[in-house]
Amino acid sequence: MPEALEQEYSHTKLQQVNKALESGMFVYVRKLLQNMPAYDLALILESSPSKSRTVLWQLIDPDHHGDVLEELNEEVRKGILKNIHPEKLAAVAEGMDTDDLVEVLRTLPDTVYNEVIKSMDSQDRGRVEAALSYAENSAGGIMNTDTITIRPDVTVDVVLRYLRLKGDLPEATDSFYVVDRQDHFIGSVSLSSIVTAQPDVIISTLIVEEIQAVHVDTPESEVAQLFERYDWFSAPVIDTNKHLLGRITIDDVIDVIREEAEHSMMSMAGLDDEADTFAPVFKSTKQRSIWLGVNLITALFAVAVSSMFEDILAQLAILAILNTLVPSMGGVAGNQTLTLVIRGIALGHIGESNSRALLYKELAVGFLNGIIWAVLIAAVVAIWKQDFMLGAVIAFAMLMNMTAAGVAGVAIPLLLKRMKIDPALAGSVILTTVTDVVGIFAFLGTATLLLG
Amino acid sequence: MPEALEQEYSHTKLQQVNKALESGMFVYVRKLLQNMPAYDLALILESSPSKSRTVLWQLIDPDHHGDVLEELNEEVRKGILKNIHPEKLAAVAEGMDTDDLVEVLRTLPDTVYNEVIKSMDSQDRGRVEAALSYAENSAGGIMNTDTITIRPDVTVDVVLRYLRLKGDLPEATDSFYVVDRQDHFIGSVSLSSIVTAQPDVIISTLIVEEIQAVHVDTPESEVAQLFERYDWFSAPVIDTNKHLLGRITIDDVIDVIREEAEHSMMSMAGLDDEADTFAPVFKSTKQRSIWLGVNLITALFAVAVSSMFEDILAQLAILAILNTLVPSMGGVAGNQTLTLVIRGIALGHIGESNSRALLYKELAVGFLNGIIWAVLIAAVVAIWKQDFMLGAVIAFAMLMNMTAAGVAGVAIPLLLKRMKIDPALAGSVILTTVTDVVGIFAFLGTATLLLG
Repeated sequence: MPEALEQEYSHTKLQQVNKALESGMFVYVRKLLQNMPAYDLALILESSPSKSRTVLWQLIDPDHHGDVLEELNEEVRKGILKNIHPEKLAAVAEGMDTDDLVEVLRTLPDTVYNEVIKSMDSQDRGRVEAALSYAENSAGGIMNTDTITIRPDVTVDVVLRYLRLKGDLPEATDSFYVVDRQDHFIGSVSLSSIVTAQPDVIISTLIVEEIQAVHVDTPESEVAQLFERYDWFSAPVIDTNKHLLGRITIDDVIDVIREEAEHSMMSMAGLDDEADTFAPVFKSTKQRSIWLGVNLITALFAVAVSSMFEDILAQLAILAILNTLVPSMGGVAGNQTLTLVIRGIALGHIGESNSRALLYKELAVGFLNGIIWAVLIAAVVAIWKQDFMLGAVIAFAMLMNMTAAGVAGVAIPLLLKRMKIDPALAGSVILTTVTDVVGIFAFLGTATLLLG
Repeated sequence: MPEALEQEYSHTKLQQVNKALESGMFVYVRKLLQNMPAYDLALILESSPSKSRTVLWQLIDPDHHGDVLEELNEEVRKGILKNIHPEKLAAVAEGMDTDDLVEVLRTLPDTVYNEVIKSMDSQDRGRVEAALSYAENSAGGIMNTDTITIRPDVTVDVVLRYLRLKGDLPEATDSFYVVDRQDHFIGSVSLSSIVTAQPDVIISTLIVEEIQAVHVDTPESEVAQLFERYDWFSAPVIDTNKHLLGRITIDDVIDVIREEAEHSMMSMAGLDDEADTFAPVFKSTKQRSIWLGVNLITALFAVAVSSMFEDILAQLAILAILNTLVPSMGGVAGNQTLTLVIRGIALGHIGESNSRALLYKELAVGFLNGIIWAVLIAAVVAIWKQDFMLGAVIAFAMLMNMTAAGVAGVAIPLLLKRMKIDPALAGSVILTTVTDVVGIFAFLGTATLLLG
């Protein structure tokens, strides 16, 4: 739809569906949902309050249920699966791609899972059980098994005749895989080389060297890096014995890239990547409270530090008023460095070889920014309160804290990473604790010495 | 490389290169860089201090310069382009895809740009100037012009013979575009349908209805949504008169998706999406200081609110000690809601039709979490300070601020969006100001009434 806003367009549809649902016009809702792509149906489910979802699900054409499940956010999907009868689920499962089906099956309770598996034919069951044996976040977990294999010694003409006989290729086929009689992977031949080659060319001469096979245990984040590194559109997956197991296509990789990029942002706020925007109130409250509890402990830590300076605070109320300023600026500066470093780690920019250079750089940036804001805030305070000494105290504390923020912003995520703790999840709490404590200590401590 | 950590692997290479560079072993560095994919070369440049980049660039095989430029982060690329002679740049430009070349050309100073354009042959120049006429973040800005077009009335056999004659297809070709004699777009035919169809089938019968053409002015974020909605691997681009202009491939869309996902995280910390991790100290200091300045103003706002309560603060030093607690918890809770809403807006989950439901939900979550932490903190304070009234004051303030945080976390990004201001950029500053002011007012105000 040229020139129309896509997002507006989905929301007009969403509005129509919601209005019709509220008025109980179920037949009309069913009609509205009938010809929507699965992506839009998933979007509508994700954008609806959790209590409307079951009704909406029942109004969606059952033929589309499998495709919609594939597209759904994990938390929303779980909520819907809870309410589906296992038999119906088995019917839905039949039409799904192996990789998507496996993702769905992983989230099922055992009894439902067994029910679904039992209702499959033996070939499908074997395919699914094999896929389930690989780790969830590995190449095996995101691969499909619908590869087209050819022998190295046949001609292009033979392949073309075989394809015409087959009549239909698996979705997103851009390559065929050349294997020997024991199904060992030899190489890839691109579909475009098949159509441009002369009919009598032997397949083995068309093998593309750049497409390597991915081992089935490779973590999905590395698979995504390989796709970006070599500009692949699909890649073959093999086991340790070089047997061809399946292929990964770029649409699965996009999901990995999106999830990884979202992961940092969501984790930094203490949210789950798959958090459901319209989850029920009690569920959201419970999910959020863990993070708030952690923050309360660190906030009480800052309170404890402040309480060490009760005497000077009792003497000079102005210190109480200004006490938030230095920690706040340190928190913002530290958070900037932390965000940059977390992104740098995610992109693979930061490692042992350059972490020291980065530390020095951020130390210098923190120190320079510290000088700028120290001078500025000292001037403001000295003029406002006609107190030069107070200005000097806050300036010193600001410089200390900004410098500490730069160092902590680099050191904390790198140390967490070395300890195998996710820097995006734990980094900001620890950083804020450091900038709060250093800020309060520097400000109230110096004040006690110079103004007390 | 099965079972090896990809990231470790790049960093081993990076370490080797850095060490060799430090020891002045330039010939060895050149050798190390020789057979690396452009993606890795870009990674090494991005992961090196800005002063080493010029040396590294000169040691990279000039044949790869174009590919590396394509892969580079914008800020790093600009730094390198500044030091390249226009004539050399023109040579580099020759081997690049239109979409990537255009992206590079956009960042050049006028004089260098003119130099590069002048050195191109007229066909290339026309191609590039046409592409430059489209908005940077539109379909026209990310499309390529290397399409293969066919007529609707020919047979599959004719197409196959044409392709064999051509001998080579543009990268990532999965479809051909059917056009009439005036180059009007009629439809897409997939490469796989060409290879599976019988030779005498007429092309027009193979047209895939699901692949619609994208208008050249469609914003790139909508293009990305269309690719995800319809699981496209490539899409044709047309102008208002339905003339075929080019095509967009999924690898360009991946860049858009990654940029968008990173944008929210970086903006929330007041950083540019394309910020260079290893930028020179002065440049980084300057870039960060704007955000710190904005934060200083909002922090001074909180200080001003506190100073309204100087009397009670002078009376009771414990209020000064506890004054950070309520704003801190409100800030964390509000930030959770804000992050969820910003992601929801980016994913297209939140619009007019459901924003009210979300507001009620987050109000309820804020209120419930407020009760939990109000009771807890009241108990801690009442026991610690043996002061039941003080506990009641902080509990009330906590409940107020957590509820306000929930409402502000939904309302602020939605209002900003309506005012066409990026919620990710401005949201967190405004939110923190709200939770600081409400928190301080509620705490010190209630304290003045009840304890003063």
